[in-house]
Amino acid sequence: DFERALLEVVPAFGASTETFERCRLNGIISPGEKFEKLHHTCRALVEQVRVSDKTPMLTCVLEGAAGSGKTALAATLAIGAQYPFMKLVSADNMVGMSEMGKCQALAKVFEDAYKSPLSLIVLDDIERLLDYVAIGPRFSNVVLQALLILLKRQPPEGRKLLVIGTTSLPHVFEDMGLTATFNVSLHCPLLTQRDAKVVLSQLGAFEPHELDPAVAMLDHETPIKRLFMLLEMARHGAGAGAESAGKVPLERWITCMEDLAG
Amino acid sequence: DFERALLEVVPAFGASTETFERCRLNGIISPGEKFEKLHHTCRALVEQVRVSDKTPMLTCVLEGAAGSGKTALAATLAIGAQYPFMKLVSADNMVGMSEMGKCQALAKVFEDAYKSPLSLIVLDDIERLLDYVAIGPRFSNVVLQALLILLKRQPPEGRKLLVIGTTSLPHVFEDMGLTATFNVSLHCPLLTQRDAKVVLSQLGAFEPHELDPAVAMLDHETPIKRLFMLLEMARHGAGAGAESAGKVPLERWITCMEDLAG
Amino acid sequence: DFERALLEVVPAFGASTETFERCRLNGIISPGEKFEKLHHTCRALVEQVRVSDKTPMLTCVLEGAAGSGKTALAATLAIGAQYPFMKLVSADNMVGMSEMGKCQALAKVFEDAYKSPLSLIVLDDIERLLDYVAIGPRFSNVVLQALLILLKRQPPEGRKLLVIGTTSLPHVFEDMGLTATFNVSLHCPLLTQRDAKVVLSQLGAFEPHELDPAVAMLDHETPIKRLFMLLEMARHGAGAGAESAGKVPLERWITCMEDLAG
Amino acid sequence: DFERALLEVVPAFGASTETFERCRLNGIISPGEKFEKLHHTCRALVEQVRVSDKTPMLTCVLEGAAGSGKTALAATLAIGAQYPFMKLVSADNMVGMSEMGKCQALAKVFEDAYKSPLSLIVLDDIERLLDYVAIGPRFSNVVLQALLILLKRQPPEGRKLLVIGTTSLPHVFEDMGLTATFNVSLHCPLLTQRDAKVVLSQLGAFEPHELDPAVAMLDHETPIKRLFMLLEMARHGAGAGAESAGKVPLERWITCMEDLAG
Amino acid sequence: DFERALLEVVPAFGASTETFERCRLNGIISPGEKFEKLHHTCRALVEQVRVSDKTPMLTCVLEGAAGSGKTALAATLAIGAQYPFMKLVSADNMVGMSEMGKCQALAKVFEDAYKSPLSLIVLDDIERLLDYVAIGPRFSNVVLQALLILLKRQPPEGRKLLVIGTTSLPHVFEDMGLTATFNVSLHCPLLTQRDAKVVLSQLGAFEPHELDPAVAMLDHETPIKRLFMLLEMARHGAGAGAESAGKVPLERWITCMEDLAG
Amino acid sequence: DFERALLEVVPAFGASTETFERCRLNGIISPGEKFEKLHHTCRALVEQVRVSDKTPMLTCVLEGAAGSGKTALAATLAIGAQYPFMKLVSADNMVGMSEMGKCQALAKVFEDAYKSPLSLIVLDDIERLLDYVAIGPRFSNVVLQALLILLKRQPPEGRKLLVIGTTSLPHVFEDMGLTATFNVSLHCPLLTQRDAKVVLSQLGAFEPHELDPAVAMLDHETPIKRLFMLLEMARHGAGAGAESAGKVPLERWITCMEDLAG
Ligand SMILES: Nc1ncnc2c1ncn2[C@@H]1O[C@H](COP(=O)(O)OP(=O)(O)OP(=O)(O)O)[C@@H](O)[C@H]1O
Ligand SMILES: Nc1ncnc2c1ncn2[C@@H]1O[C@H](COP(=O)(O)OP(=O)(O)OP(=O)(O)O)[C@@H](O)[C@H]1O
Ligand SMILES: Nc1ncnc2c1ncn2[C@@H]1O[C@H](COP(=O)(O)OP(=O)(O)OP(=O)(O)O)[C@@H](O)[C@H]1O
Ligand SMILES: Nc1ncnc2c1ncn2[C@@H]1O[C@H](COP(=O)(O)OP(=O)(O)OP(=O)(O)O)[C@@H](O)[C@H]1O
Ligand SMILES: Nc1ncnc2c1ncn2[C@@H]1O[C@H](COP(=O)(O)OP(=O)(O)OP(=O)(O)O)[C@@H](O)[C@H]1O
Ligand SMILES: Nc1ncnc2c1ncn2[C@@H]1O[C@H](COP(=O)(O)OP(=O)(O)OP(=O)(O)O)[C@@H](O)[C@H]1O
Ligand SMILES: [Mg+2]
Ligand SMILES: [Mg+2]
Ligand SMILES: [Mg+2]
Ligand SMILES: [Mg+2]
Ligand SMILES: [Mg+2]
Ligand SMILES: [Mg+2]
Repeated sequence: DFERALLEVVPAFGASTETFERCRLNGIISPGEKFEKLHHTCRALVEQVRVSDKTPMLTCVLEGAAGSGKTALAATLAIGAQYPFMKLVSADNMVGMSEMGKCQALAKVFEDAYKSPLSLIVLDDIERLLDYVAIGPRFSNVVLQALLILLKRQPPEGRKLLVIGTTSLPHVFEDMGLTATFNVSLHCPLLTQRDAKVVLSQLGAFEPHELDPAVAMLDHETPIKRLFMLLEMARHGAGAGAESAGKVPLERWITCMEDLAG
Repeated sequence: DFERALLEVVPAFGASTETFERCRLNGIISPGEKFEKLHHTCRALVEQVRVSDKTPMLTCVLEGAAGSGKTALAATLAIGAQYPFMKLVSADNMVGMSEMGKCQALAKVFEDAYKSPLSLIVLDDIERLLDYVAIGPRFSNVVLQALLILLKRQPPEGRKLLVIGTTSLPHVFEDMGLTATFNVSLHCPLLTQRDAKVVLSQLGAFEPHELDPAVAMLDHETPIKRLFMLLEMARHGAGAGAESAGKVPLERWITCMEDLAG
Repeated sequence: DFERALLEVVPAFGASTETFERCRLNGIISPGEKFEKLHHTCRALVEQVRVSDKTPMLTCVLEGAAGSGKTALAATLAIGAQYPFMKLVSADNMVGMSEMGKCQALAKVFEDAYKSPLSLIVLDDIERLLDYVAIGPRFSNVVLQALLILLKRQPPEGRKLLVIGTTSLPHVFEDMGLTATFNVSLHCPLLTQRDAKVVLSQLGAFEPHELDPAVAMLDHETPIKRLFMLLEMARHGAGAGAESAGKVPLERWITCMEDLAG
Repeated sequence: DFERALLEVVPAFGASTETFERCRLNGIISPGEKFEKLHHTCRALVEQVRVSDKTPMLTCVLEGAAGSGKTALAATLAIGAQYPFMKLVSADNMVGMSEMGKCQALAKVFEDAYKSPLSLIVLDDIERLLDYVAIGPRFSNVVLQALLILLKRQPPEGRKLLVIGTTSLPHVFEDMGLTATFNVSLHCPLLTQRDAKVVLSQLGAFEPHELDPAVAMLDHETPIKRLFMLLEMARHGAGAGAESAGKVPLERWITCMEDLAG
Repeated sequence: DFERALLEVVPAFGASTETFERCRLNGIISPGEKFEKLHHTCRALVEQVRVSDKTPMLTCVLEGAAGSGKTALAATLAIGAQYPFMKLVSADNMVGMSEMGKCQALAKVFEDAYKSPLSLIVLDDIERLLDYVAIGPRFSNVVLQALLILLKRQPPEGRKLLVIGTTSLPHVFEDMGLTATFNVSLHCPLLTQRDAKVVLSQLGAFEPHELDPAVAMLDHETPIKRLFMLLEMARHGAGAGAESAGKVPLERWITCMEDLAG
Repeated sequence: DFERALLEVVPAFGASTETFERCRLNGIISPGEKFEKLHHTCRALVEQVRVSDKTPMLTCVLEGAAGSGKTALAATLAIGAQYPFMKLVSADNMVGMSEMGKCQALAKVFEDAYKSPLSLIVLDDIERLLDYVAIGPRFSNVVLQALLILLKRQPPEGRKLLVIGTTSLPHVFEDMGLTATFNVSLHCPLLTQRDAKVVLSQLGAFEPHELDPAVAMLDHETPIKRLFMLLEMARHGAGAGAESAGKVPLERWITCMEDLAG
């Protein structure tokens, strides 16, 4: 039975790395110390589960505004962890799935994880798994209850499990009892203008002397994911010529920002 | 498989142009600069998806009051884009369809789009797809969740997708998390009296000296769609003779406006 | 196919006139200018759809208090219009029908109308089609959404359609988005005492010198439908003899009004 | 078909009289003029439907506090009317029936009535037909909508129908739109102490000199149905001997009233 | 049919006495006059149904705080009544039964009762039959409506029925319309310290000189059921030796009371 | 039947001890007198059920904040009780089970317990059995009602049953009527800094001179379960070497606490 379990695990693992890579299409760039400390704390959890025998299961939620880089961080942790069983659970292939169907899918992932001695499950965008909408609010209590149970259930003896969740709704999670159920809750910050400057500078997106006015166009806090989209819009929008792979002219950046403000 | 996918795409494309044409029965007339800048911004998005490799998917919502010309604008963009796969998704043929049925239909459209290297999906009148009504409010959370997932899900590698949605309920969309999910949100304005005068003048609807009093009968802001309906009512209402294709007599315009005010 | 469609239409048409006649059991009597202007505006819509090619579909809602004569007016318009396809849609034969059943019935009526070059659909008592009740409020959102779609969907090329709806709940319709969906909204007024006198006088219901005191028994505003019922109660109530077809004695009118007040 | 319809009607009629009799186990006693005027107004409606051709359908609701004698009044009217088709609709044999089942049962009763030239339907305790409860409030909107339609639907040509409903919730009926749907609404009053004295005196329940103190034990307003129950409790309660069919001793009446007050 | 009905009744009767006995495991002890008057009033109802022909059905609800002795009182009445058909309806064997299932079970009990000339039905803990919970509040309206009908429906001619219900939620019952539906509503009081002293003294639970301090440990009002439990805890809790059947030492009583206060 | 029942019980019992052991992976350490008194009171209940014949069923709920040690306490009581039938009911294997399924499972456990002369049922995390979530709030009323019935239903004659429940939502339980249904309600306290010092000292987690500053890092009240997790994180987090089984260096403890605070 154990051998068969291992066999089942192997292909899942192979498939997963590729999956996690697709979660960080713009790579990982460090906007500074705050980010690195966060990364460090997360890696410590990955280590603890690998090493300790007294905490066979740890659960951690990454919370932060939309586009703050939660999914990319979770994926990066998984790629670095190299546990024998790793699984990304997202709502992507659950369109129109029934509540019960989702519960079974979730339970299945945990059961699969229990078959491996050391496992990592990423629950991406948990609000989507829960069909959450702020009006009401409404959500699938069936799926929520399944999560509350699965996140607290100890793995069978000798098996270890790290669960990393992501959400942009920490306050809702508080009310749902999810925050109290996760052992650890960590915050993914937005980019301050200073952070954004560090990122844009590393990317070489602007001529050095245009960097400051370019940053000045941004809001006080910007999601890193949005920063990448804005750059691409400025680069490839109508009127862009063949030079689009090089620096972004400040002027086009400004026009682009103004157009979107409407 | 790819060949077969292409085959499937071709007829859809052929059918679509005609479909999009029916969305602008009164043609497209420019009421001035504001409109042209909006059009320009939209076309830039069409270009970006065609050209850039870093943003394989862009999503844009056109929001504006009822009759402000959202559907006609989206259709005009599609006709101008000439992507190999283009699809208009509206509630028109979803009368009484179940929530699940709508989800599957939506998912199917996205799956079809993923088969083409470059695709455009117009989601017209999203509130209708969602069965939204302000009393409650009520709406299909099942369909909403499907949209939230589909609008965020990356297309498979090498495929590109532009999604253009329309709505007259921007505040509701905010609460639903839809606005945050669309990459870009653009506003379709109503016609000021000045804009309306430009349009009526281009149409040659009134004798030049009657244009100003005719415009004065309008509200401060008028939906362009309503302007066309009012003209037609003044032209063909009871008492109109054979001359109805020519200019609208100011008097009949005034009577018509008063009748409707009740 | 077209021939078969025409065949299908013919019997419907024949049946309809009779149906519409049953909606005005007390005939149509003019209480004065206000009513005639309303009638005129409605007939202009009937003409516009018949003549204009630019507005293949017009939708108009008649709103007014219970018994104000909405159904009788809609029926009168239909009888005067003489379109090749005409249909009265009411909840009368939808007792206990499921929401889906109603949607299909509604969609079927529109599909049938599309087969005729020129069609008129009367949607009578729309609140009843919607299972509306003020407590909650509750209503069938499924049917509402179907209506919102059907009332906005363009007929196929070359077909024309006039939809006349009736309701006594204009404010609810506003909240439901129905008012905005109808192109035109017209108000059916109650009878003032002056209007009532005109009607009673035309009917010769009272001896001329008793007309004023009789009218004075009425509320400030009376639904025309109720006026006919009150007359009949005064005429045929207990104690009425064989003379009941003639004038109503003022005394009996007064007793009758007092009894009902309780 | 008509003959068969008549046949169907006959047994229903026979059965009905007995049914109606069981609704007034304590007979009908007049507590005075108010009651007689009410009775008179009701009988006028019974006459009007029998005689008039212009009001083929009349609907009347009797509203009054619990135990005020609504059901007994409706039954008395039916027994006096002697229409060829008469039917008592109550929730008694609808325990646990589904909403749809009730709708069909209601529709069936009306369809049956349409087969007879002159029919009377008593809808007893309409709130029970509606599964109404004040908490929420909750009720079956399905059944309510069916009633709203049936109460407004004209019978086929040449058939006449009187509907008498009873309820103790006039304000709820207002909100439900039921009051507006009934043509006439009449109030069944409670017994004042003066009314109660008239009743008790007619019944010879007390020794004449004990009548006043006995009445003084009652609340300011008493439901007639409760008055009969109190008498019976005082007569047959523990300690009552063989003489229980005679007068009620004042003392026992007082004890009984005090016991119930707790 | 009647004979068969009688046969059906007999075993039910036999079974019932035993069932009712199990409802008063601690016997019945009189805490004083208040209780005796209540008992007397109840027995009068039992007599009235047995004797009177004018009230073939009486319904009475016993309301009082949790543990105030409602069920034991109802059982005592049944045991004393010795009607040929008696039935205890409680939720005990309805765990997880559907709403419809409960309705049918309830209706069945009443149908069974109608077969006997004289019947008694105890509806114990009606809130449990209704699945009532204060949050919301929520309850089964289906079962409530069934009860409202069954409690008002007259038994067939010649049959008599007494229904005794119990509840600890008189205010909720008011809102549900249940209180108005029961003919009589009686209150079961809690024990004052004085009442408790009477009970404890009769039980000989404490040494006479320790009775007062023991009573002083109690709240101002104590449910009789709780008093029995407290005694038993003081008697058999940890540290109790073989002497536990005798008097309760005051000291242990005090410790026990303090432990429970936490 | 009895013999077979016993057979069924035996394996359940064998299995259970192991199950209960898994509920206290960190053993049981006494943080002081408060805890010991609580333990003592609980054991008294275990004794009472074993010994007394007058309280064949006792129900007790342990309420306390998340991680306060409720489950471990319940398990400890079970292990100490050594009743012939003992069962741990938790939501762990009820993921996605239907409401009815849960009811049946619960009823089954009680039925099984009734087969043994002396039984203990632990209902762990009752809010999870109820699918409770604070938003709304929502919960399964079906399961709640089943619990309310099962917790009040007397076992068959001669059988005894102790039920121990756990919850972290005492106020919600109050509103649900659960608190009133349990005979006894006991509070599991959090660790004050003083309690925590006792625990950490017994564990020898820090060098004695570092104990006070280590405790000072804690909140005023700490769940005992969290204290164990924090220790393990400080021990095995990234950067920990082979010495991780010994004392925790104060510095690493501080870093760890700060990281989690974010
Ligand atoms: N240091 C970084 N941390 C996170 N993401 C980074 C970093 N550097 C670059 N990125 C890029 O930023 C993007 C972050 O997007 P990501 O989808 O992870 O955000 P998110 O918070 O999950 O967004 P959403 O709220 O929409 O789910 C990715 O494309 C990633 O490649
Ligand atoms: N510049 C323009 N932009 C948009 N529409 C135009 C313009 N010029 C003319 N039109 C005409 O105005 C009408 C706009 O109607 P359209 O259905 O697009 O409005 P809408 O905002 O989608 O309305 P609704 O809110 O009802 O969906 C069309 O008939 C179109 O042909
Ligand atoms: N000028 C008139 N307009 C409308 N109805 C008239 C007029 N003259 C007479 N009537 C009579 O008045 C009655 C109007 O009743 P009708 O059913 O149309 O009212 P309604 O507003 O539809 O009522 P409801 O709100 O109950 O649906 C009809 O019997 C009709 O024959
Ligand atoms: N004048 C009267 N009018 C009505 N009922 C009378 C009259 N005289 C005597 N009764 C008796 O009073 C009782 C009235 O009870 P009835 O059931 O009609 O009241 P109700 O208002 O329908 O009560 P509920 O609100 O419970 O349905 C009957 O038993 C009837 O025989
Ligand atoms: N005079 C009395 N009246 C009622 N019960 C008594 C009396 N004397 C002793 N008892 C005992 O008190 C207990 C009362 O419990 P019972 O279950 O009847 O209370 P209850 O009000 O139905 O409680 P619950 O609200 O939990 O249903 C029984 O064990 C009964 O034997
Ligand atoms: N005296 C004690 N009481 C309880 N638990 C203790 C004690 N000493 C040590 N422990 C340990 O503390 C932990 C308590 O965790 P437990 O799961 O019982 O808490 P809980 O209150 O049930 O948490 P939750 O609210 O998450 O269900 C267990 O690992 C147990 O081994
Ligand atoms: Mg993400
Ligand atoms: Mg549109
Ligand atoms: Mg009408
Ligand atoms: Mg009645
Ligand atoms: Mg009880
Ligand atoms: Mg626990």
